[in-house]
Amino acid sequence: MESIGYIIIQIFILLLVAKVLGSIFEKLKMPSLIGEILAGVLFINLIIFFPGAGEVIHFDPNDFMNDESHFLHVMGELGVIFLLFMVGLETRFSDLMKVGRTALYVALLGIAVPLLGGFALMIAYDPGNVNLALLVGTAMFAMSTGIAIEVLRNMNAMSTKEAKIIIGAAVIDDILCLSLLAVISGIVAPDTDMTSIAINTVIVTVFLIIAFGFISRIRKIADRRRHRMIERYRHADLHGDLALSSEVSGFHEIKTHPSELSVLGIAILVCLGMAALSSTVGLAGIIGAFLAGMLFAEFKDSAPCEENFNTVTSFMLPFFFIYVGMMVKFDDFEIGLLPLLVALIAVAVLTKFISGYHGARKGKLSKDSSVLIGVSMIPRGEVGIIVASIGLTVGVFTNQMFTTIILMTLATSIIAPPLISWAYKRMYSHTHEKQQGLRGI
Amino acid sequence: MESIGYIIIQIFILLLVAKVLGSIFEKLKMPSLIGEILAGVLFINLIIFFPGAGEVIHFDPNDFMNDESHFLHVMGELGVIFLLFMVGLETRFSDLMKVGRTALYVALLGIAVPLLGGFALMIAYDPGNVNLALLVGTAMFAMSTGIAIEVLRNMNAMSTKEAKIIIGAAVIDDILCLSLLAVISGIVAPDTDMTSIAINTVIVTVFLIIAFGFISRIRKIADRRRHRMIERYRHADLHGDLALSSEVSGFHEIKTHPSELSVLGIAILVCLGMAALSSTVGLAGIIGAFLAGMLFAEFKDSAPCEENFNTVTSFMLPFFFIYVGMMVKFDDFEIGLLPLLVALIAVAVLTKFISGYHGARKGKLSKDSSVLIGVSMIPRGEVGIIVASIGLTVGVFTNQMFTTIILMTLATSIIAPPLISWAYKRMYSHTHEKQQGLRGI
Repeated sequence: MESIGYIIIQIFILLLVAKVLGSIFEKLKMPSLIGEILAGVLFINLIIFFPGAGEVIHFDPNDFMNDESHFLHVMGELGVIFLLFMVGLETRFSDLMKVGRTALYVALLGIAVPLLGGFALMIAYDPGNVNLALLVGTAMFAMSTGIAIEVLRNMNAMSTKEAKIIIGAAVIDDILCLSLLAVISGIVAPDTDMTSIAINTVIVTVFLIIAFGFISRIRKIADRRRHRMIERYRHADLHGDLALSSEVSGFHEIKTHPSELSVLGIAILVCLGMAALSSTVGLAGIIGAFLAGMLFAEFKDSAPCEENFNTVTSFMLPFFFIYVGMMVKFDDFEIGLLPLLVALIAVAVLTKFISGYHGARKGKLSKDSSVLIGVSMIPRGEVGIIVASIGLTVGVFTNQMFTTIILMTLATSIIAPPLISWAYKRMYSHTHEKQQGLRGI
Repeated sequence: MESIGYIIIQIFILLLVAKVLGSIFEKLKMPSLIGEILAGVLFINLIIFFPGAGEVIHFDPNDFMNDESHFLHVMGELGVIFLLFMVGLETRFSDLMKVGRTALYVALLGIAVPLLGGFALMIAYDPGNVNLALLVGTAMFAMSTGIAIEVLRNMNAMSTKEAKIIIGAAVIDDILCLSLLAVISGIVAPDTDMTSIAINTVIVTVFLIIAFGFISRIRKIADRRRHRMIERYRHADLHGDLALSSEVSGFHEIKTHPSELSVLGIAILVCLGMAALSSTVGLAGIIGAFLAGMLFAEFKDSAPCEENFNTVTSFMLPFFFIYVGMMVKFDDFEIGLLPLLVALIAVAVLTKFISGYHGARKGKLSKDSSVLIGVSMIPRGEVGIIVASIGLTVGVFTNQMFTTIILMTLATSIIAPPLISWAYKRMYSHTHEKQQGLRGI
């Protein structure tokens, strides 16, 4: 049997377990992505504890961990990039501006409070180890946009003001994280060049000003395009339209929807191009994908790609959650670290909730809305894992500490989704009751 | 910048070049997949000749060649697996049985003639080197199903009798190839176990008999399922239906099409499961995917997945053609081998065309149809590359010979699509003229 055959078996097993666990969580009225994350956790740890199982399907956990071009890593990243494009598609620039001030409160508190909380906890745990406390604090504050958004998206809550605040906070969070992460790595690993950090922050800011400026002006361009399209249809230039199709020309009975599929092709290209660009300036790829989605939102009428993009995302996204789960390996965990882990999880959950709640209240949101925003800030993800890796590389974290931090991020990713789901339903039903009450008057 | 950022840049560049070259070939009325293959060829060879370019985007061609879990390899394989599922969706078991005899002629001739042709050419080129001649002959006969099928599919020609014959021949070809490849590797590398080859051939035959037997009987099961569905709708068990959806329950305004997307999820699982199964018994994964597609074809009314599956395939398939192109590296090619390469390409094209044409004529097909089948057999692909790798591993091929064989498979993959496109249009317009002539009477 060829080695690609074993890889197909690996993908089949991962998707099957993810599907089964996802369905179980759905039956329990919880988001299915928890099942997908757990499928990744189960898979990697079963293979670590029973190496024979890994040999049967030719899966080497070390290859997976060390190989950055491993398909699970890349397909997972594409999944979350596509998700953020979908989110951008449902976001208008003007809506984002309206909630800008509240999003800023939420983001600033959401960085300061967990950073201080994590720092204080670690100084209490291991007094004097400032580097350790700083890095744990850093791993505490970076939020994971993907998880909160997927839960809200599944409940069709993306058009609410609360969702806009969460997205806005995520964008601000990513920019601030980038700078802070650089500064803190500079403190922990002293050979970092502070000038380049300053330059990088300027580049990022300029990039975002240009990108948002362009998107806010794109509506005029979109309107002009629409006029041209109408003109073109009026002239009924059939030949020109056929040349646009992605199918082989010369045949008329085209079964699929070529123009929609070719819009999809262009949308994917722009999405990846913007993700690549934002990676190049030093931002997360998902920020670029989100901007690309906002761009396409303005062409929704003349060039729709939402449905097809959603289909592709539904295939790719489970790989992201599976990948998140596969980061968690229990083999390095020491039972003596359990109290610390519990304390870390408690601090991680409480600090983000409190800062999200108070940030939203400061923005004059209702208590229900503020609770939703608070719980939506809880999940940590990719950045927490990156910080943990930095800690391991510079020698501040032991393997055990590394695993503890990863387990903390996993716990927040699993605790948050049911809370978000609950908070949204609660807010939704209260609003509904109020409206019914008003109608009764 | 994180390494995943560089990978997003790599994907963006590959897809962009594939899209641009694909559009140019379309404008020239040629299949766009040639452009996608050439994008792969360009990318890998530019990086080999200008290593600086590879360093800028962090792409190491050696990592790519040696890493079987590299994302380009896996996503390409998923692309062609999904393509064959789509083909299975448009294939009925009864149609395949009707053309069985002709497909058998085409497949048998299509193995014997190229094998003898390649063998004769190499014996003339390097007399006495029987192993070399045998391996080149083997690399000559294995057809590439993906390329011919994608061209026909883009012209909506999958429902024609000629397409069924090509698919049937591909299935038979794969079974015979497997056995012959095993036998010939056994001769070339004498430590191969002939008993296991015999057992494997039996397993494959039993697997296919069971699979086809199951599919031929599935219609009854499908009918029964349809009745149950109707009954269920009659009882209007809303709660039960909602539980089927893949979205978070409890909310009614679901914007996407959950039931179609959940059918897609199941279809992908079955497709990958069957591909894994057929890999396990020793067949190509695409054969299993094709069988899975045939299975879902019987549930088209109650559980449609065609449109969504097509969308996912349209995203994944370019990676297959890009990957095929990336197998071709010019750095090992010696200009002295050019005459041999030209002779190999000529033998490869002519022997497959002649055997396809005569096989079809023996099956009482018209000259136009036989020409179409003849040219559709020309492309070689994956298996030719596998044979070349075996030759390199056992030391029968030099690096130069290896590259020559790979270039031969590339040439057939690029020569064939315009010929297939031309032959189909020719057949189509002749049939059309005849019908118009009849109407005139």
